[in-house]
Amino acid sequence: MNGQHVDIKKVRIDDEFWSTKQELIRRKVLPYQWEILNDRVPEAAPSYCMHNFKAAGRLNKNRELLGNAFREPVYTFRGFEALPEDPSSPKEDEFYGFVFQDSDFSKWIEAVGYSLATHPDKELEAVADGAIDIVCEAQLPNGYLDTYYIINGMDRSFKDLRDHHELYCLGHLIEGSISYYEATGKDKLLKAACRFADYVDSVFGYEEGKIKGYPGHEIAEMALFRLYETTGEERYKKLAEYFIDERGQAPLYFDMEHPTPKGQPYKIDYYHQAHIPVREQTEAVGHAVRAVYLYSGMADMARLSGDKRLLEACDKLWDSITKEKMYITGGIGATHLGEAFSFPYDLPNDTDYAETCASIGLVFFARRMLQIRADRKYSDVMELALFNGILSGISLDGTSFFYVNPLEVIPEAVKKDERKWHIKPVRQKWFGCACCPPNLARLVASIGTYAYTTEGDTVYAHLYMGSEISHKDTEFKFESDIPNSGKVKVTANTSGRSDVVLALRIPSWCGDKYEIKTSRELISEVRGGYLYLKGFEGETVIDIEFSMKPLIVVADNKVTEDKGRCAVVRGPVVYCMEEKDNGKSLRDIHIDTDTSIEEEITTEFGLPTVALKASGYRKISVSEGDYISPLYKTYKKEETEDIKIRLIPYRLWANRGEGEMSVYIGL
Amino acid sequence: MNGQHVDIKKVRIDDEFWSTKQELIRRKVLPYQWEILNDRVPEAAPSYCMHNFKAAGRLNKNRELLGNAFREPVYTFRGFEALPEDPSSPKEDEFYGFVFQDSDFSKWIEAVGYSLATHPDKELEAVADGAIDIVCEAQLPNGYLDTYYIINGMDRSFKDLRDHHELYCLGHLIEGSISYYEATGKDKLLKAACRFADYVDSVFGYEEGKIKGYPGHEIAEMALFRLYETTGEERYKKLAEYFIDERGQAPLYFDMEHPTPKGQPYKIDYYHQAHIPVREQTEAVGHAVRAVYLYSGMADMARLSGDKRLLEACDKLWDSITKEKMYITGGIGATHLGEAFSFPYDLPNDTDYAETCASIGLVFFARRMLQIRADRKYSDVMELALFNGILSGISLDGTSFFYVNPLEVIPEAVKKDERKWHIKPVRQKWFGCACCPPNLARLVASIGTYAYTTEGDTVYAHLYMGSEISHKDTEFKFESDIPNSGKVKVTANTSGRSDVVLALRIPSWCGDKYEIKTSRELISEVRGGYLYLKGFEGETVIDIEFSMKPLIVVADNKVTEDKGRCAVVRGPVVYCMEEKDNGKSLRDIHIDTDTSIEEEITTEFGLPTVALKASGYRKISVSEGDYISPLYKTYKKEETEDIKIRLIPYRLWANRGEGEMSVYIGL
Repeated sequence: MNGQHVDIKKVRIDDEFWSTKQELIRRKVLPYQWEILNDRVPEAAPSYCMHNFKAAGRLNKNRELLGNAFREPVYTFRGFEALPEDPSSPKEDEFYGFVFQDSDFSKWIEAVGYSLATHPDKELEAVADGAIDIVCEAQLPNGYLDTYYIINGMDRSFKDLRDHHELYCLGHLIEGSISYYEATGKDKLLKAACRFADYVDSVFGYEEGKIKGYPGHEIAEMALFRLYETTGEERYKKLAEYFIDERGQAPLYFDMEHPTPKGQPYKIDYYHQAHIPVREQTEAVGHAVRAVYLYSGMADMARLSGDKRLLEACDKLWDSITKEKMYITGGIGATHLGEAFSFPYDLPNDTDYAETCASIGLVFFARRMLQIRADRKYSDVMELALFNGILSGISLDGTSFFYVNPLEVIPEAVKKDERKWHIKPVRQKWFGCACCPPNLARLVASIGTYAYTTEGDTVYAHLYMGSEISHKDTEFKFESDIPNSGKVKVTANTSGRSDVVLALRIPSWCGDKYEIKTSRELISEVRGGYLYLKGFEGETVIDIEFSMKPLIVVADNKVTEDKGRCAVVRGPVVYCMEEKDNGKSLRDIHIDTDTSIEEEITTEFGLPTVALKASGYRKISVSEGDYISPLYKTYKKEETEDIKIRLIPYRLWANRGEGEMSVYIGL
Repeated sequence: MNGQHVDIKKVRIDDEFWSTKQELIRRKVLPYQWEILNDRVPEAAPSYCMHNFKAAGRLNKNRELLGNAFREPVYTFRGFEALPEDPSSPKEDEFYGFVFQDSDFSKWIEAVGYSLATHPDKELEAVADGAIDIVCEAQLPNGYLDTYYIINGMDRSFKDLRDHHELYCLGHLIEGSISYYEATGKDKLLKAACRFADYVDSVFGYEEGKIKGYPGHEIAEMALFRLYETTGEERYKKLAEYFIDERGQAPLYFDMEHPTPKGQPYKIDYYHQAHIPVREQTEAVGHAVRAVYLYSGMADMARLSGDKRLLEACDKLWDSITKEKMYITGGIGATHLGEAFSFPYDLPNDTDYAETCASIGLVFFARRMLQIRADRKYSDVMELALFNGILSGISLDGTSFFYVNPLEVIPEAVKKDERKWHIKPVRQKWFGCACCPPNLARLVASIGTYAYTTEGDTVYAHLYMGSEISHKDTEFKFESDIPNSGKVKVTANTSGRSDVVLALRIPSWCGDKYEIKTSRELISEVRGGYLYLKGFEGETVIDIEFSMKPLIVVADNKVTEDKGRCAVVRGPVVYCMEEKDNGKSLRDIHIDTDTSIEEEITTEFGLPTVALKASGYRKISVSEGDYISPLYKTYKKEETEDIKIRLIPYRLWANRGEGEMSVYIGL
């Protein structure tokens, strides 16, 4: 169980669907984000990210200015953000923005790295090099690099692990620096990240005098394992293992750091997955992004160390999420309170959180589990999240984003009902807390590394997309029509007889109905939902078609919110109704489950896309006498009007203006 | 339009249903509440109410101790409550509890007064006299009486009208003092209330140097009108009129008192109904209890002054509540955020607030509108709220209470989902913020004054209960089987020929189907849903039976949450399903709308009560193949199991242990 993450440079993507998304990231999102980081987008909230690095760099040069007395920045009403009194002229030596603002640069440089790895771009690289220079100038001589404390006072550094994000910033810096190093071979940022990691290693751990804490927002764990795998330095692995092993051990570190207020109704440790040791955790709880980032690190550790108890915990947490707490869109986090998991089967559609970043984190976790064992239960979920709850996060034109991905929206409700204010009826320009857009950018830019993993002689194809990958003596060329149809063609080329095994995922959504033709006879075997093929010699062409019939799907009956309602899916794509196509009051619409669903190719979303048409009816209520108030009427059987329900892929909703939307349809 | 509130001593109630409730209040609630006020109930949170009056009284005696430098009491996590460090030994000279803690005494003495008026009780009266002595000793020589500031420092008195509750405490003190005076003829507390009102009158108003503010929590308005009607002193009417007229005038007083934080997403003034002048208010908004208390004061003013614009505003606000924002139970306040009204037709059943006190306030508003014009739209709602959303607030044994009255409860959800933590699956012992239990006590103890009003020669019977009332030369004896059946008998007696008119409400729930027999011919006319009868001479017996057939009722189709669901009602009683009778997963239950609903007399709730049995079925989901996760299945038509649905009156839910409950049933 030691599957390998593939080198991004080894996967060349040429796919109508995915290349378009990658180009959108490269041409629109990355340049826009750079402007954001430099506070040059008038209509967006200033980021202050590069401002902070420059301010820290200046302080760093004038070392006598680096005071130690911590100055609390002014927090404003806008969610714990330090903002200047006069936004038009922020002070040069002040920190602004969220405590984790540095990470915005790291996410950007990570996406830039992936993009450069597959699309060299001298201009972008020059901008990135300049940015790296600014960032590196902010680093303290001891390796510490978090501008919040460099600017405000180092004496409080690492004193609030629970709520401040120094180790989170370290994690993102590592991820970004490795990406940029792998793309360009330039190691300036990687060295900076290593120095910061070395400093953290010198400060945290079991040894006497070290801090026995761990990250309040996980990510450093998986980042440090990646740093270990990149540099071969054992100390990074050990540091990551320390963070994972120590988490949730009694006495609870966060409780010591922040004694619980008397009468507080719940233990904040759940929010941080720090309530019990990780190996004892069986239910996914707390802040959903934090959770899946932690579980990803745990999966890395389980793979690298062979720790069976840790793997068991990963399995249970995977099941907890995907069998009890995941929306059909691959969204996770059913409550906005704490942006968190709710209890099992509590999956409200119109008040959910389902943060784009959380689904991205679920993909991270899935890929790591696939490296441990190739089972389609991971890759199916990965694909489901990608085509639905993740890509819903970005508009077709790449300039606006959803943080929260509801499955049902009535615009009046989300505007007027404070309980739904976290839900937006249209994508927003950018966020003060800008995690989702850059997270989307780094995922899409590196999608090739999720499509494949390798282990020994085997190449696993987890996702299908037009792409080329070589493994040992064999080259594979993939052509794919997913998500429009289930057609996939693989052309394998090897000079002689090859030992390479190709493992193709049979997506569970095809119900194991697929046709396969190979140009030569191959030895085949199905295990864990993968079709293992070997015996490649010369050129071999494999044609597969996975059945992609539209299906009516219902949630488990334990999901109260979905009773009497169904969703329509086709392959990995979940569909929804929009007001634009179906009129207002979508809750009055019911589907006729006996009539087959028609497919319609539409180009209204740019690329050809399959829309669906289902037969159904609209209930029309018929007035009778009032009961006490005209608000209540004595019942009379509703009339119905036959209609065609038009459905579009969920990821594309809210690209045609504001209106009602619903994934679920009345039965 | 000047209907009179009847003197509580003139209505003698002898009714199986209501007398039992009144006895419960007299024997259980009032003594229990007195123990609570004195912190002698070990299992309940201490009130500190009488403690505070004693502490203030001591300070008052030792005037040199009355410092002026305000000491902020320690607020704890438990909802802005000042609590002692050591709960077992609170300090003698400290204020504890909520800023409005004094009002708990006033609500108690008000209920005591009503109870004494109809059930003389020397022992209770002696306890009350003692309590009044303690309270009066706390009053400052200038008339001020709010222990929070007397103890903590008078220099901040009336400096936070928006959030602190001095004028609210004044209002309750007035109401309590009048009740006690009317019951016993003792005016010590009434004089204290007048002195406090006089002091407030000297401090607030349009005149130069006076504070131009108004209550943050309304009630003083209606209380001052009542004080005017009790004492005949014009200045109390003027002060109330000032509070109503000034409310919401620009510049907004609360905004000046509390400048709005930058970027705050909504104007807090809505919460306080202080966003625009009251005559311009057309939609019921903000904190529901505050709202209906204000509207009650507005209705008093409209009646006393004949102000047409004010009456128009009252009409619009009445319609806004009852046609767009009222649950079928008479509950109001659809969101716990701000315990407030939500937008029109937003009436979620499982996350509502529907505070007991808010429905009680709706009854206050209704009675006042009935004094302006006798229209059954007010009395129907009054009765609906009483038999459902108000009486649901108290357990059958009188020892536990609901603050929040949900229409649907799944115990697991309200315990595990933080968004529903305001909802309790069983009634609670007592609350730190104890508004609902004493509010229930004062309403039930004075129910006779809601059953009747008079205007000129006319006696209006708005509610039916076994009772006697005299008007001029005529005595009316009512016998009533409501809510068990629609049978009402009235025996009128007069010595000769009488000019008195009896106006009997024809409840709208009977669909105007009723049978009436009179022992002599009377002159009759129907107006506004009332049957006006005159021509009484000697003894006249009137037998009426209002149709009380169980009805299936649906909400207006604009109520998203109730689509595809119905409620069952019988007369003014709304029914619900409980898990105890119908098993778990009530959302799977559907009613057969074509079969008639059977009635069942049960004694399991003490008095004979009508339970209902409806034919229906339970949907049983049938498993098919998984879609990606076992959480999602390809659809297969559900099977059904025929069942009898047992329904009990909503007010009686949660008297037989914890379990699921739902008013709405699947269609």
